[in-house]
Parts: sequence; structure tokens; C-alpha cells
Amino acid sequence: MNLRLAKRTQEITPFYVMALLRRAKQLEAQGKDVIHMEIGEPDFATPQAIVEAGVRQLKTGEVKYTPAAGLSELREKIAEFYRQRYSAAVDKERIFVTPGASGAFLLALGTSLNPAEELLMADPCYPCNSNFIKLFGGQAKTIPVDAASRYQLTAAQIKQHWTKATKGALIASPSNPTGTLIAPDQLKQAVHTVNELGGCFYSDEIYHGLVYDENASSALEFSDNVFVINSFSKYFGMTGWRVGWLIVPEEFACATEKLAQNIFIATATHSQYAALAAFDKHTQAELEHRRAEFEMRRDFLYDALLRLGFEIPIKPDGAFYIYANCAKFTDDSYQFALDLLEAEGVAVTPGKDFGLNEANHHIRFAYTTSIDRMSVAMQRLEKFINKG
Amino acid sequence: MNLRLAKRTQEITPFYVMALLRRAKQLEAQGKDVIHMEIGEPDFATPQAIVEAGVRQLKTGEVKYTPAAGLSELREKIAEFYRQRYSAAVDKERIFVTPGASGAFLLALGTSLNPAEELLMADPCYPCNSNFIKLFGGQAKTIPVDAASRYQLTAAQIKQHWTKATKGALIASPSNPTGTLIAPDQLKQAVHTVNELGGCFYSDEIYHGLVYDENASSALEFSDNVFVINSFSKYFGMTGWRVGWLIVPEEFACATEKLAQNIFIATATHSQYAALAAFDKHTQAELEHRRAEFEMRRDFLYDALLRLGFEIPIKPDGAFYIYANCAKFTDDSYQFALDLLEAEGVAVTPGKDFGLNEANHHIRFAYTTSIDRMSVAMQRLEKFINKG
Repeated sequence: MNLRLAKRTQEITPFYVMALLRRAKQLEAQGKDVIHMEIGEPDFATPQAIVEAGVRQLKTGEVKYTPAAGLSELREKIAEFYRQRYSAAVDKERIFVTPGASGAFLLALGTSLNPAEELLMADPCYPCNSNFIKLFGGQAKTIPVDAASRYQLTAAQIKQHWTKATKGALIASPSNPTGTLIAPDQLKQAVHTVNELGGCFYSDEIYHGLVYDENASSALEFSDNVFVINSFSKYFGMTGWRVGWLIVPEEFACATEKLAQNIFIATATHSQYAALAAFDKHTQAELEHRRAEFEMRRDFLYDALLRLGFEIPIKPDGAFYIYANCAKFTDDSYQFALDLLEAEGVAVTPGKDFGLNEANHHIRFAYTTSIDRMSVAMQRLEKFINKG
Repeated sequence: MNLRLAKRTQEITPFYVMALLRRAKQLEAQGKDVIHMEIGEPDFATPQAIVEAGVRQLKTGEVKYTPAAGLSELREKIAEFYRQRYSAAVDKERIFVTPGASGAFLLALGTSLNPAEELLMADPCYPCNSNFIKLFGGQAKTIPVDAASRYQLTAAQIKQHWTKATKGALIASPSNPTGTLIAPDQLKQAVHTVNELGGCFYSDEIYHGLVYDENASSALEFSDNVFVINSFSKYFGMTGWRVGWLIVPEEFACATEKLAQNIFIATATHSQYAALAAFDKHTQAELEHRRAEFEMRRDFLYDALLRLGFEIPIKPDGAFYIYANCAKFTDDSYQFALDLLEAEGVAVTPGKDFGLNEANHHIRFAYTTSIDRMSVAMQRLEKFINKG
């Protein structure tokens, strides 16, 4: 062990899927066809109006720093978005434009989490979330969840696991990897429970917009005393632009601005100008069209996986993932994923990237590729299972 | 005090210049002319070839995540830059493209600094540097420096102040705020001293290229066992694009990649493609032209400030700052800056933004505005001093 490396580097877990990705690239370099169902990134291009707004700004050549909190006009548009979509009034001063949701997490936890403090979160959940906590010397206290609560933390679990060391709770809805939404009244109870306990509530809403049956509720509908993390990456199709946002409780606004000044200076200027076009009527129409396409893919993949014998207790409500139980085929989903890639050229993400709770019995399938490609993937998967 | 705010938010200092900036904006809104000599950002637009490369990438619409460490082609170009400019061979695997130098600092300290560990650095220095250290629970141990060492830490000081708690030393050359370079043999000694002590050496080289008499040496010329922080912001004129880079000792490469995956996902894609054009021959010619303009400005401002009675023991070698001693006029340079702005509409940065060492006797002037505007500023400054 190297004594110069910070201890936190040993606590921060790598993504197991990276080994799969490396192998997938080798296979592709050898001319083998790999169908990518491991990627958490929409396959659509950025909407044209957003691209054009970015290009317009670049062509001025004046790509200077913006204020640390972001372009005033963009913060106003985000406030308007909450008024319209969620009937929630959010003071612009509480809104911070960030380098993706990653930047939002850095600010939210950097301003609130002390070393040794714990955050409650569901298992399974997105792995970066616990790693952000470890970055600041905190602890992720993961609580196993299942279909009974739609894979979401409940107010009862929050109360049950709360200790003196607990700083707050994090809920992601729709969830990555399960794609399930928390019901509005459950979210409300969770928010109120954390507020009563005097903690911080963090709501990861980065897959909002990508929901297919009913709308997702924002934590801001139930309280101003919440952190909300969101992004232009997923629904708005702007992954590579690295622009997201964070909403903080009023008392955190000054500290958040100070931290943003110090650790980012500002978010990329042209990305912010481009994002101004994200709320346009035409862009919205295009995005809704894409949402419908994702819904068809979900339906296709859900039916196909069930037919092959995977168990999916709840049909996912949103995001672009299905977290399928593969216990019928294997007790080691990581090895299953490696073998599937090797034998049939289908790349998926093993459950152990999302926690410990029944991880070896789960695989995450991302429907970020076309139904045509997924059809081929399902044929290959069927062949792989039947051989096994 | 709010118990929910993380303790580090109280340790992280705000920039005093922000109060001046706010007041400057108010004055401008009232129609008053303000000359900005407080801004650490080149006033030139981004070179055309860089803008065009960014636009080309955007127009593909495929603005997807790049690998966490950055575009392979850009990492190669950076390696080539070190071969050509510094005759230093740097393995591409040690090079990480980051969201500005800010991102480079986050990775360098995030992978190396444990809570309670100390970093030695000069006072005065750039304020964000100590704040990054505090972000991870570390301590900045600032050492007063003066003209005798060109405002740079010496190997002797590093040895003298080294304790069991010391993780390493940070040297910024050219320095912000003093603009002074460390001499090559001094840098070599400092690097070797830290290596012998088993610590980490961090070299902030973000103003490289903007030097006017002799070239700056990179720490990489003397050892592979160093962290080098650099950026496309200053010399390359890409502030708002948020793209920089970090070079790490080989043993830190894996941890750096893991941390980058978790806390950034990746640097903005179009900014990386744009940066590919930064090393082109035509771009380089344009940048050298700008460098010559900055040199003329330095000479103008240096002479003008001396004539007015400011003390500047060493003519700055680089960056775009002059750190002038104003003891002849005031014992409170912050109040001096506030009064100068109010009375004459000239904005400068007070010494206390850069540390404690004789801070109240210093003002930082940035020559990020034209000689014409600086001429007016000097007339106003003279008037202000004579009234005082």
C-alpha cells in the first residue's frame, strides 16, 4: 500500500462495469459486434435548438467566466420551470447552475456533510452517491429496499435507522438502477420525517422528465427545506455538456456560493447559454417525442426479459433502466455479465455496482439503444441462457 | 450559527474582492465608469481556431461523455507539448483532462490529502488553493515570503517547516498575486527536498506561457514524482470553457481515474475538442502576439505604479498581475481599495485576499485591460492619492 495515497481513495469503489467496458472495446477492436445495454447515457443527439444556442454563444468568442452561481437568466428559467411543472415557488437565490449533477452533489454535500456523519440511502442505488459521501469523510448507511416500497426508502426506515451520527437521507426518484418512482405521499412523509429530525433531505431528481406513466413529484412540492439535484444530461439530452443544477435550503445559499466560487469558479459558459434553449416550446416537443420512444423501449424490454424468465417485480416507471433478477440463471451476476459479453457480445451492468442487497442476483439493462438492436440482444441472451 | 452547515463552510474564506465587485456593478448601473483592474481573466476573446473546433464538434450533435480521464487525442497532445516545450517525457496515462485547474486541484488533493494533513505554501498565494485543502479537512500552512526569494517558497523553508503532519508543498510559478517566477535551480531543489522527505510536490503552472523575459520551468523537468496543475484558461484564452489538466505521479494514476469517474464523470466534451486546436501553429502565433501585448502592459503598469510611489521590489516575470506595496498611502489596503472604487471608479484586489503576510500594505493590480484604459486608471489613482 502506498502511504502517500489518501485513505479515501481506498474507500471509493471503482465501477465493476468498467472492466466490462474495457473488454467490450477489445472485442469490438477484434471486429466483434457488441450491443451496449450498460450505458447510462441517452443515444439521442442533443436537440438542435440547444446546439444552436451553444454555437451562437461560442461564435461571439466571448467565452468568459459567468458568475459562480450561474447565468442569472438560466437561474430564472429554472425557477420558472418549477413554477410551471411542479407548482413550486423557488427563489432564484437558492438555485445554482453546476457542472452536471456531479457538481451539484459536490456542493450539496460539501456544504452540509461533516466527516463521520452518515447519510441514509437505499440499496440498490447509484454508486457515485456513496462515493461523494466518502469524499468528504462521511458514511453512506445503505438500507436494503425491495419491491414492497418500490425500491425506495420509507419514512419508517428513516426513523428506524436514524442515529446521532445521521446527517440526513437521500432519495433518488426515479431510481437508478430500478427505474421506480416514490409515490408522492411517501416522498412527502420522508421529507417531513427528515425535517422533524432536524436533518438534511437530498432529492436526486436527475431522471425527472423521463417517466412514462405518471409525473414524478419534486421534493420541493412538500418543503423548501430540501436539497434538489437535477441535470440537463438525461431528459434534456446534454450529457457531454456538463451542466446541471442544485437547489438548496435558503440558509445554505451563501455557503454554496462561496464553495462554488472556490471549487468550480463557474460552469462552462457555452453550456449554460445552450441550456437556455432547453425549456423552449420546440425543444420540449422534441424531448416529449423522445420520451415516447423510451417508453416503447421500456415496454419492449420489460416484456422480453419477463418472457426469458427474469423477474421484475415492478414495472419501472422511469429513467432508462430495468433492474432484473437473474437468480433463475446464476448466483453470480458479475460472472454472468462477463460471460454474456464474451459469448454473445451483449454488455450489461452487474448488480454489485449498485450495492450489496441481492446484488449477485441482479443485472441492470439500459434501454439506451434502439428496439432493433435490443431485439438482437434478446435473441443472443436467450441463446446464452439456453446454453448455460 | 446553523448546526446543519458543514464546519468546513466556516473555514473556507470568501473573496473580499467580491464585495468590491458588487459595489462596482452598482456604480456601473448608476452610469458611472469603472475601470476593472481586479479581474483575473484575459480580456482577449478565445482564438478563432479554438472556437471553430468547438463549433464543429457541437454541430455533430453528438455531445456525449468522453472517458473520465479525457479524450485520448487531447492527452497525447498534452504529452507532446511537454516533450516540445520542456523536453519532458510524460506518459499519457499520467495526464488527466479536468474541468479547469479547479478540477485538477480537486483530483490532486482528493487523491492525496488526508484530513489533518498540512500543505506548505507561500503567503501571499491564490486563496482558492488553501480552500481546496480545507475542503478535504487538511490545513494550509502558509509561510511568509518576500522579495529575497522572489516571493517563492525555498527548499530551506520547506525543510524548516516540515513536520510529521506535513503532506507536501505547493509552489505556484508564476505566482498569483506577485507574478514572480521561481528560478529553475530553486524549483529543482524544492522538488528534490519534498521527494527526499517522502511528501507530495504540487506545482501550479497555470500561468505558464504568460511569461515575458525567460521561460518558466516545469516541475516535470526535475522529477516524475510531482503533481502538475495546468489549464487552457489563461495563456490559451479559454476561461469560460472550463478545461484544464493534471499530471500525477504514476502511482496516483488509478486513484485519479477512479475519483474523476465519480466526481466529474468527464470534462465538457466540446471544450476538449476545442482544446485540440490550442496547440496548432496558427493558434500559437496568435497567442504569442497576445503575450507580447501583455508584456507591454506589464511594462506600462510597472513604470506607472513606481512613478506614483508604490513599491514593487521585483518586476513581475509573468501572469498578468502586479502586487504593489501601498504602505506609503495606507495601512489598510482593503479600505484603500473600497475608497478608490467609490471616489474614482477604479477596481483593484486588496492584499487580504491572498493571505496575512503584509496583506494590509498590498494591492493587486491586474493588467487584463488595455493600456488606454490603464492610463485613465493611473490618472484617477494619482488624483485619489493626492487627495488622500
